[in-house]
Order: sequence, then structure tokens, then C-alpha cells
Amino acid sequence: MSSELETFPNQYSGREYEIDIECSEFTAVCPKTGQPDFGTIHIHYVPDQKIIELKSLKLYMFSYRDEGIFHEHVTNRILDDIVAAVDPIRCEVRGDFNLRGGIKTVVRANYERK
Amino acid sequence: MSSELETFPNQYSGREYEIDIECSEFTAVCPKTGQPDFGTIHIHYVPDQKIIELKSLKLYMFSYRDEGIFHEHVTNRILDDIVAAVDPIRCEVRGDFNLRGGIKTVVRANYERK
Amino acid sequence: MSSELETFPNQYSGREYEIDIECSEFTAVCPKTGQPDFGTIHIHYVPDQKIIELKSLKLYMFSYRDEGIFHEHVTNRILDDIVAAVDPIRCEVRGDFNLRGGIKTVVRANYERK
Amino acid sequence: MSSELETFPNQYSGREYEIDIECSEFTAVCPKTGQPDFGTIHIHYVPDQKIIELKSLKLYMFSYRDEGIFHEHVTNRILDDIVAAVDPIRCEVRGDFNLRGGIKTVVRANYERK
Amino acid sequence: MSSELETFPNQYSGREYEIDIECSEFTAVCPKTGQPDFGTIHIHYVPDQKIIELKSLKLYMFSYRDEGIFHEHVTNRILDDIVAAVDPIRCEVRGDFNLRGGIKTVVRANYERK
Amino acid sequence: MSSELETFPNQYSGREYEIDIECSEFTAVCPKTGQPDFGTIHIHYVPDQKIIELKSLKLYMFSYRDEGIFHEHVTNRILDDIVAAVDPIRCEVRGDFNLRGGIKTVVRANYERK
Amino acid sequence: MSSELETFPNQYSGREYEIDIECSEFTAVCPKTGQPDFGTIHIHYVPDQKIIELKSLKLYMFSYRDEGIFHEHVTNRILDDIVAAVDPIRCEVRGDFNLRGGIKTVVRANYERK
Amino acid sequence: MSSELETFPNQYSGREYEIDIECSEFTAVCPKTGQPDFGTIHIHYVPDQKIIELKSLKLYMFSYRDEGIFHEHVTNRILDDIVAAVDPIRCEVRGDFNLRGGIKTVVRANYERK
Amino acid sequence: MSSELETFPNQYSGREYEIDIECSEFTAVCPKTGQPDFGTIHIHYVPDQKIIELKSLKLYMFSYRDEGIFHEHVTNRILDDIVAAVDPIRCEVRGDFNLRGGIKTVVRANYERK
Amino acid sequence: MSSELETFPNQYSGREYEIDIECSEFTAVCPKTGQPDFGTIHIHYVPDQKIIELKSLKLYMFSYRDEGIFHEHVTNRILDDIVAAVDPIRCEVRGDFNLRGGIKTVVRANYERK
Repeated sequence: MSSELETFPNQYSGREYEIDIECSEFTAVCPKTGQPDFGTIHIHYVPDQKIIELKSLKLYMFSYRDEGIFHEHVTNRILDDIVAAVDPIRCEVRGDFNLRGGIKTVVRANYERK
Repeated sequence: MSSELETFPNQYSGREYEIDIECSEFTAVCPKTGQPDFGTIHIHYVPDQKIIELKSLKLYMFSYRDEGIFHEHVTNRILDDIVAAVDPIRCEVRGDFNLRGGIKTVVRANYERK
Repeated sequence: MSSELETFPNQYSGREYEIDIECSEFTAVCPKTGQPDFGTIHIHYVPDQKIIELKSLKLYMFSYRDEGIFHEHVTNRILDDIVAAVDPIRCEVRGDFNLRGGIKTVVRANYERK
Repeated sequence: MSSELETFPNQYSGREYEIDIECSEFTAVCPKTGQPDFGTIHIHYVPDQKIIELKSLKLYMFSYRDEGIFHEHVTNRILDDIVAAVDPIRCEVRGDFNLRGGIKTVVRANYERK
Repeated sequence: MSSELETFPNQYSGREYEIDIECSEFTAVCPKTGQPDFGTIHIHYVPDQKIIELKSLKLYMFSYRDEGIFHEHVTNRILDDIVAAVDPIRCEVRGDFNLRGGIKTVVRANYERK
Repeated sequence: MSSELETFPNQYSGREYEIDIECSEFTAVCPKTGQPDFGTIHIHYVPDQKIIELKSLKLYMFSYRDEGIFHEHVTNRILDDIVAAVDPIRCEVRGDFNLRGGIKTVVRANYERK
Repeated sequence: MSSELETFPNQYSGREYEIDIECSEFTAVCPKTGQPDFGTIHIHYVPDQKIIELKSLKLYMFSYRDEGIFHEHVTNRILDDIVAAVDPIRCEVRGDFNLRGGIKTVVRANYERK
Repeated sequence: MSSELETFPNQYSGREYEIDIECSEFTAVCPKTGQPDFGTIHIHYVPDQKIIELKSLKLYMFSYRDEGIFHEHVTNRILDDIVAAVDPIRCEVRGDFNLRGGIKTVVRANYERK
Repeated sequence: MSSELETFPNQYSGREYEIDIECSEFTAVCPKTGQPDFGTIHIHYVPDQKIIELKSLKLYMFSYRDEGIFHEHVTNRILDDIVAAVDPIRCEVRGDFNLRGGIKTVVRANYERK
Repeated sequence: MSSELETFPNQYSGREYEIDIECSEFTAVCPKTGQPDFGTIHIHYVPDQKIIELKSLKLYMFSYRDEGIFHEHVTNRILDDIVAAVDPIRCEVRGDFNLRGGIKTVVRANYERK
């Protein structure tokens, strides 16, 4: 159960512009081993009426700290949560996870409004 | 209320060419906390009859020093001011703001003459 | 004879998203000289129903340790093995091999489901 | 209350040699704000009879995940715990903590056996 | 007139250890031209009974925002203010100022308790 | 009045291939302040019958040493001079000028034969 | 007169895949001054039935050691020799030559089978 | 049981000079998990009458490929083997091992002739 | 005949502190070939009563623009001029000159007051 | 038989200053395999009455192009030749040779006048 994402009104909603956010202190727990995982979450979106409030985003990221979830799934879930909260025109979430046993994983998921 | 942007005539207006400007010493004030924000403003444009005079651009950037404004809004406002002053064929402004609480934001806005 | 690649079910198979994996500790044996070769294997794929389980991938990579095989062929064989195990929508394998006698080789092979 | 540090016997205790360990996934909690802190802990030591077992060190580092402690104090406490567990000839612990509000802190503490 | 530097008690004052702080968002005003100067202030000290509280340090740094002062002098004044507030065993302040007209300046000043 | 650009015959004029040249020691004079400007000039072209002789290009670049000219104009003039001397199929000139007062400028101009 | 390029059969000729080779120790002689030139030759190709044998490529590169030839011409000649020896589907050769008198040159030539 | 290290006579044994060798493709097996370990071995020595022949050093390094041994011990054993084979005036061996579970280890051992 | 170096009074002359200045846009003329030379001049000094005024230093550096002088000599002459103008406690000048024909030169000269 | 090293008089012989020269395009032949070796030769010296003329140094370096000689020996021989030609107060020669079979070698030899 993640912390709530808050938004504020976009004063420039008449123009399609892009926002990139990099959260370099993401940590969750591996659902197989119970050990901490670390990584960076990159968010890229084109806002419509709403902009993500950054302090609430920080708390949202921190809410994964004790959660057991796979890299591939958490990236998709963050995308779903942002789309639900901000209703953007386009959004991409990229999860860039730390090396484990000589193996590094990056997961990239996209949303585009119809 | 920002400082005036000045221009000088483009001697090569018959050719569509590009100008990139990087202002690495941008600072404004966070409208929520009242504390200073820092970042780099990148400007990319295709001039028509007018070229931005760089000294006036420097003063324009310095005029944000005591202003409270969000990252997302200041990037769009700088784009509007440049378009008004230079009437370019195309223009992009990118605001690349410093890390706050493990979170980094980049905002990118475009203008294209019809 | 390589170790078995295992998979787990993709909870987000309704969305076309991308997974990048970098295995930086690949080693095999040169079929001409019998001496060890070293390199990094990059895997990029769009999963359908199955996701590669990373621990089995690590063991799969280690199973080349005593095998004599050319750079150009091993890259293609890894691609075939992943396609067989995961049945992805798209997949690219890139083998980035270490310098030998002032010469460095990179091999890149693609698969796209019809 | 931290997890136990384990050791194994040093087969080369007749020679004064050095071991450097870098734990790049350290996280604790800020005692003032209750928010997560992140950083890298570097350990440098000259072993006598005992060597730190790395898996127990990893668990030891993870045991700070929910603890509220200042940068300056945690660095010194890790030094004390290593000295108690390993009884080294010399030891230095360096805590390299992530940027907060434009400010980055590094703390370095040493022990030398009399 | 600078903002007050606050401190908190050093729990490990029995051990001589080192603290490095990097404030990468320093800005003041050039006393000759009235234009903003930017740079990074590095502080290195060995605490005795007191440790610099980082939030007050941040506010202290921000208090130079409208002050006209030379690079060479501000570095020495910050050293004096830290020595007065913290009474350290040793302290070095280094001011690393941004390029102006193809020229970059770094100033380094030290204090050592007798 | 610039130094003459010389050429030599292209033995492979039957094939459209590309040549990139980077002149990292360009210097001219600012027409407003009379002070030296520095930068790098990048030339990219597809030769037809003629190739730029590099020694004459070096002398051509040195001929700007005492000339007062704006960044935006010198980039376009170099493009015109190369097109006149070499009659290329395509050409791009990029002027990458050094930081002045926290502001960096890059100018990029293209020519394409009809 | 260059050394012979050898090939071996492509076991995966049914798939269009790419091979990149970087020869970082290329040296020839300047035809004007008689002095050594140095650089890196990059080869990118899509093999059909034949793959370049790397040891013969190394000897081929070494055969230029005493030859006087311009940067622009040697890049095209290497492309012609590879096309003749390997009959690839596509090939690009890039010659990246060392700085001379503040000027650096890169030459890029392509072949595509009809 | 390692491969034999060979030497050749030092023509400049009258002068104390230094040789640094970096073997970036070292791999052994973890004695606890049976899984491959990777790293770089750095050798620094002052030769007396004998110089390490590099081809035999390469084979010596490859002889660890199937051996189960701890990082701390293999570094010391390589030092002992080099001292036995070359009888140097001084020697340092540094083993720089790859990240495992967010932890990186470097081991450094020295020999000095009495 | 160089431009005059100006100074201003050192308010902290009671403390021995260091100033580093990097002038990255130095250019003179080669006395043998008459062609421009480029480089960076680094100045490190401990001031006594006087500090170098940076604008006059910039003009001083520009005064070498048309002067024919060897790398080795210009570095020493700049040292002499600074010592004469500032009467420092210690001073080092380092000239770091650009690559010519595959050869790069750095010259370093020191002064220490008796 | 190497090309002659030339010198010119040191105008600042009354001061002990340092000259660093980096020759990044050194090539010789391996005496065992007959194949080219590549590397960078660094020279550091304190001149007395004579300074190395750089053009003759370039020709001296080129004279090794067809010579078969070991890394360890060529570094010492260059040191001897420089000492003989320049009679410096101190000199160090460092040969930094390219990777061969995953192994990189650096040789460092010193001379100090009695």
C-alpha cells in the first residue's frame, strides 16, 4: 500500500511540454531472498492538467522500502500509479537497478493516452 | 518582473541555422519553502531576423534571483519571454535543476512558428 | 550443453515494455587457441508471457566457461536460447568482447516475432 | 541493535597486508526528520588473526535500515563494531553520504592498535 | 551579517576523526561589478566537543546571497566563523569559484588549534 | 580578409562519404569588448571533387586571430568560405565557443547542394 | 600492397546481424611529410556468407605501417578491400586519426549491396 | 597447482626501476558458493636479476580458473609465487575484485627484501 | 613587453593561505615556426601583503598573444613577473601546453621566499 | 641506432624547474613475435644547461619504429639516451604500453645526478 501521490495545477497546460524526474534513492526488498534491492527510478511525462508534487513523490518512493516486489513488476506499478494520479498525455517509467551477481537490469514501461 | 532581453540583427537570416546557449548559473527561490533553487537553463533556437544579445540574457537570468517560482513554470515563462523578444522560427528551453532530497527534475518546453 | 534458462510469469503482459540485462562477467574459450575470452553480454527484450529468471540466467552464462566458441557464433546462440526459453515479442543480444592484439569486437543480433 | 559480524581465520597473519571494502548500498534513517539517508561505507583495515566474513558484513550493514542515527555517529559506531569483532592492527571507516539540500558530508574515523 | 551557525554535541570527542562538507550552491556578489558569483565551498574539520548542524550551515551559506565580497576574503571569513562556532582541533576551508573570463580561482585557508 | 583554403582531388568522388574535422584552437576578437574569444570549430562535409587540404585550413583558422566578429556570424562565414572553396555535396559548420560570464554558446549552420 | 584478409564461414547467415571491430593501433605514413600518422579504424558490417578472421585483419592493418597515404583515401581503400574479401550486405569504415597541429580528422565511408 | 612463472634476464639490473603489470581478466571460484569470482590483479615490483615473462604470467593467471580460493588468500599466494620466481627487491600485489551483493573488496600485500 | 599586473591588499595577511588560478586561454607564438601555440597557465601562490587582481591578470595573459617565446621560457618569465608584482611567500607556475605532433609538454617552476 | 637528440640552451638554468613530456605515439616491434607494440613514453626531467628540442625528440621516438626491443629494456635505454644528451639534474622515463592478451605493462626508471 503506497503513499498518496499529490499534484498541483499546470499553468501551461496549453503547451505539450516534458518533465523528467530522477529518483536516485529507491530501495525495496527482493521477494525471493528478503534482501534489500537498490536502484534509480526515472519518470518522463507530458503533463495535461496536473503536475506531480515532488515532496509527495519522494514519500511515495519511500513507501516501497519494506515491500517485496520484482524489478519488472515495480516499474510497471509505478507507471500505473502515476497515470492514475496525474492523468498525463504520455508517460515513461524506467527502473535502473543495481548490479547483483554480475548482472544489472533496467526495465522501461510506457503509457500513451488514446 | 524580469530584466529586458535585447537583440541584434541576424546577418545570415536567409539560412536556417541553430544557436545553443547554456546558462549554468541560474538561481531562483522555491515558492513553497522560500529557499534558493539552482540549475542550468539551456536555450536552443533558430533565429529569424533577431539574435539574443548575450549580456542582456545574462542580466535577464540574474533577474530571477529573488523570485519565487516552480521549476515547471519558470521554464515555460523563459520560453515565452524569448519568443516575444526574438520572434524565432523555432525555440526550445530546457531547465535542468539541482538534486533536492534525492530527486532531480528537468523540464523541456518547445515553440514552433506556424 | 548450456544450463537451463528459467522463467516466471509476466504480470504486465498486456503492456509492451522493455527489459535490459547486462552480464558483465562472461567468459568462454577461444576455439582456435584454447585460451580464455572475456566480455559483456547485453540482452534487450520485450516480454510476452514469460520473464527471464535472473539467477538461472547467471548459471546459463557460467555454463560457457569451458566451451570453445567464436564471438560471432556465441552471440547468435544466446539469442536463439533466449527466444526458445522466453518466446519474447522482440529480442536483441549484444556481445561486447575484450581487446585482443589491439582489436575489439562487438556482435549484435536481433529477433522479431512475426 | 546491529546484526552480528562474523570472521574467518587469516592464513597470512604473519604479513601486514591491507583489505579495502566498499559497501555502496548503506541506508539508515535521519534522527531529526525520520526520512531515509543513503550513502557508501568504506572500510580499510590491516587484519591480525581474523578477516571479516563479507556475507555477515552485508547483513550488518542492512541492520541499520530502520535505525535513526546521525552521519557523524554511525561512522564511529561502525568503526567500534569492526574493531570489537576483528581486533585489527589498524582500521579506518569512511562514511560518504548523499547530497541533502546542496550539502554533501563525508566522515572518516581511524583506529590504531597500541 | 551572516546567519548563525548551530552545533550539536560530539558523542565521539575522545577520538580525533575528520568531517568533510561540500556546499555546491554557494553564491555571493562581486564587490567590483555587482554581479553574482558562484562556487563550491569545501569544509574539512576535526571536531572537538561540537559538530556543525547541517541545516544551520545551509542557511549560513545562503546568507551570503546578497553580500559583495572578494573570493579571497570570503574563504577566510567562513573559516573564522566556523572556528568561532565549533572550536575545532583543525579546520580547512576551500572556496572553488566558477570560471570568469577564462580564469578560475580556488582559495584554501587553514586553522590549527595551538 | 582570410587566408586561402586549398584543396586536393578526391580519388573516391564516386562514393558519398563523410569527413569530420575538429579545429580546437580557434581564436578571434570580440567586436564589442576587443577581448579575445576562444572556441572549437567543427566541420562536417561530404566531398564531391575536392578535399580540404588540412595545412591550409589551419592557416585559414589562424587568420581570424586579430579579427573582430560575433560567434553567430563567424560560424556562417566559415561555412560560406568552405562551400566556395570545396563545392561539397553537403556541409555543416559548428562553432563551440568558451564560457563567458556563466554562458556558453554553440552555433550550427548547414549547406546542402540543390 | 596490403596483406591478405582471410575469412571463415558464417554459421548464422540466415539472420542479418551486425559486427563492429575497432583497430586502435593503426599507423601509416603521411605522403607529404614522410612522418608517421596514427589513428583508430572502426569497421561495422552485416556479414552474408563470410566473417573476417581477426588475426588476418590485424596483419592487414599492420601492412600499412610503411605506406604513404592520405586519411581520406586510406579509409576508402580499407572499405574496398573488406567488401572484396567478405562480400557483406552492408559495411561502414571509419578512420579516426590523431590530432595534428590542433586539427583532428575523422573519415566515414559506406557500402550497401544492391 | 599453478602454472609455472618464467623469467628472462634483466639487462638493467644495476638500476632500481619499477614494473607495473595489470591483469584485468582474472577469474577463480568462490570456495563457499562454488560460483565464479572475477577481478583485476595488479603487480608492482622492482626487479633484481630477473624479469617476469608476460606470456607465462598470463598462463599462470589462467591456472586459477577452476580453483576455489578466498580473495584475501589468493592475493597473498600470488605475491608468494612471484617472490619465489623472480626474487625481486620489492613487490606489491593488489587484487581488485568485482562487486558482490553491493560489496566490493580490494586486497593489497607487500614484500620487501631484507 | 607585457601588460602590468595589478594587486589589491590582502586583508588576511596574518594567515598563510593558498590561491590557485587557472588561465585556460593562453596563446603565444612559436619562435621557430611563427605559428600560434595554445595552453593553460596554472598559478599557485601564498600571498603576503598583496593579492593579484584577476582582470589585470587576464590582460597580462593576453599580452603574450603576439609574442614569440618557448614553452620552457614563458613559464619561468610568468613566475618572475608574478613574484615581482605580488612579492608572495611561495609561488608555482605551471604551463600546460597543447599537443604538437603527438608530443605534449608541461613546464613547472617554483619560487620560495628566503 | 637511434636518431640524434638535439638540445637548446636553458635560459633559466639558475632555477631548478621541471619539464614533463608525453609522447603518445610510440611504436616498436616485439622481439619475440615480430609484431608491432604501441605505447606512450612519459619523460620528466629537471634541466641543467640544456633543454630537449622537441622536433628532434619526435624523430628520436620515430627511430624505434622498426626496432625489436622489450618494454623493460626500451624504457631504460631512452633514459640513458636522454641523460647522455641533456645531462639533466634528475630524469624519469615511464613507458606505458598497450594491453596485450589482457595484460598491461608500465615501466618506470629514474636517474639522479650525484
